[in-house]
Amino acid sequence: MKKANPNQDRPEIFNTAVLKKIQQARMAQPTAGELLSGILSGDINALSKAITLIESSNPKHFEKANTLIHSCLPHANQSVRIGITGIPGVGKSSFIEAFGKHLSGLGKKIAVLTIDPSSTISHGSILGDKTRMEELAKDPNAYVRPSASGETLGGVARKTRETIVLCEAAGFDTIIIETVGVGQSETAVHSMVDFFLLLNVSGTGDELQGIKRGIMEMADAIVINKADGDNIPKATLARTQFAHALHLFPSKKSGWIPTATTCSAKTNEGIAEIEQLISKYIELTKNNGFFDSKRAEQNEFWLLETIHHQLQEHFFHHPEIQKELEKTKKAVQNNEYSPFAAAQLLLKKYFKNKP
Amino acid sequence: MKKANPNQDRPEIFNTAVLKKIQQARMAQPTAGELLSGILSGDINALSKAITLIESSNPKHFEKANTLIHSCLPHANQSVRIGITGIPGVGKSSFIEAFGKHLSGLGKKIAVLTIDPSSTISHGSILGDKTRMEELAKDPNAYVRPSASGETLGGVARKTRETIVLCEAAGFDTIIIETVGVGQSETAVHSMVDFFLLLNVSGTGDELQGIKRGIMEMADAIVINKADGDNIPKATLARTQFAHALHLFPSKKSGWIPTATTCSAKTNEGIAEIEQLISKYIELTKNNGFFDSKRAEQNEFWLLETIHHQLQEHFFHHPEIQKELEKTKKAVQNNEYSPFAAAQLLLKKYFKNKP
Repeated sequence: MKKANPNQDRPEIFNTAVLKKIQQARMAQPTAGELLSGILSGDINALSKAITLIESSNPKHFEKANTLIHSCLPHANQSVRIGITGIPGVGKSSFIEAFGKHLSGLGKKIAVLTIDPSSTISHGSILGDKTRMEELAKDPNAYVRPSASGETLGGVARKTRETIVLCEAAGFDTIIIETVGVGQSETAVHSMVDFFLLLNVSGTGDELQGIKRGIMEMADAIVINKADGDNIPKATLARTQFAHALHLFPSKKSGWIPTATTCSAKTNEGIAEIEQLISKYIELTKNNGFFDSKRAEQNEFWLLETIHHQLQEHFFHHPEIQKELEKTKKAVQNNEYSPFAAAQLLLKKYFKNKP
Repeated sequence: MKKANPNQDRPEIFNTAVLKKIQQARMAQPTAGELLSGILSGDINALSKAITLIESSNPKHFEKANTLIHSCLPHANQSVRIGITGIPGVGKSSFIEAFGKHLSGLGKKIAVLTIDPSSTISHGSILGDKTRMEELAKDPNAYVRPSASGETLGGVARKTRETIVLCEAAGFDTIIIETVGVGQSETAVHSMVDFFLLLNVSGTGDELQGIKRGIMEMADAIVINKADGDNIPKATLARTQFAHALHLFPSKKSGWIPTATTCSAKTNEGIAEIEQLISKYIELTKNNGFFDSKRAEQNEFWLLETIHHQLQEHFFHHPEIQKELEKTKKAVQNNEYSPFAAAQLLLKKYFKNKP
């Protein structure tokens, strides 16, 4: 008896050869070169695929990702990078939507990225981001990309920094980085943008109480959102209070004097003024050289930061250190050992046992 | 002919045997055990010698210094540690003198240490410290020790932290750490004290302009000095402004609400109130557990800080890295390399070439 061909009587879709072909076509990833030419021609689909490649934690993708970033670098760096932070409830999404649409109306191309290390845990904000900026996401001049996921802020920050490069190479001239203000994310965002905007609302008179330490001093502008309707007098008062508080801080290396202003993402009141404010800042800092020197400094910062971070990773994952660390910490906390003497003991073990 | 004895006709002082004995006696250093018992009995001479031992950069002294600190630890940690910072001209020395004399009058024993990494360069402040607090230095209840010298803030910070331990073991119940506000020294001081006091004076209305970023947020109290004579109204106004600014900051983990107050080191007005303020803080934080948990955290901080610092030292002094670093920095600054890709290249070289 003739051996039955298992595919003989099945519809074509079950034919393994055809199936394999379909699967291969689906899995065929564009090469770095294909992604690059897609990005340079402003193809959003290629950009999205490239960002996904960069976000991949599969070590096989690292080299391709690095090649791609490297070839995008000469085409990047022509944008204005704006960081926006503020505690939940101040209306960051609606502000970015209103602000982004205003920029789009001026003929600008806007990419919105978010840094939200917490999104790995809830996975909620990814959906959130997409629905939150519906209008802007539909705008042909805008690209909204939710937060890279990652276990650590360092990982998320790296991915975001490299996504900026890709977006710039794709022709976006305004990059907005939003952060929800979890942990150290504001500091990370501050270290990758040209202009740092703190969004706030008027409240109970304790407007600054929700803001993390040091954030106000980083701000180039404080914007009081929701300045509409009955809320206008309160927002105006808050603006005055913030302006006064900003005045008390040391002057900035940029030569820029931070200001406080009001706006309404609902009525669009004040939105145009914020764009003008940022343009003034860019003009000032490009003229006095601060813009370029800050970007060079930021690049160096991320070089050193990555080194510091990985040296520590290597140390604290060393089996010998992992065995000793908790015990040593306890002894130091309880004043049984001087922190410095204890550090020497651990370091001796680490360097002795190096491969 | 009999060979002449070269020492035969010389006065005894030139006799080499005697001379050697004198030299040996001079050079004979007390043992760690001798220093310890001296310190525990409150012998200032032993304390000074021990601090000098800790400050020594001679590697031969390290082990003895570590032994001494280790044996002092069980007798330390019973003091209140107060950090005092302020820009030049606010009268830090005269304030510490007035404040220290007040504490001495209350029966307290005060040690005053300074952190001034710049003193290595000028060598001026060492003399300065000694003459600046003449009155306090003469007080039998006070011990004034100028800044440890050292090339790096890290080194100075380590020496100061260990000097605190020695002073506490010697029975000092109030340790004042003064910093002149150079570089990152305020942050270092903040990480080794229980209470952080920012000293200021009234000025042109821009009182905060001279203060470095983040310092105000660290302060548990802001004291406006020189509130005497014609200056009282201006100082009172400055106090109000600072109180308002402090109110705008996020609340502290300690549960303490930072306050602003005025004083005069000249008339002693307000000095007693500052002591009461600090006592209240200590009472509050000892009751709510913050005092102990902060000290344990500080110990851990210095353990990790020392490790971070030395890992970096080791990396950046690696010959292979030294050869490449400047070139790599330049390439990264000029956007020829992604900071992350460049970091990987350096790290690969470092770990491959480890002994």
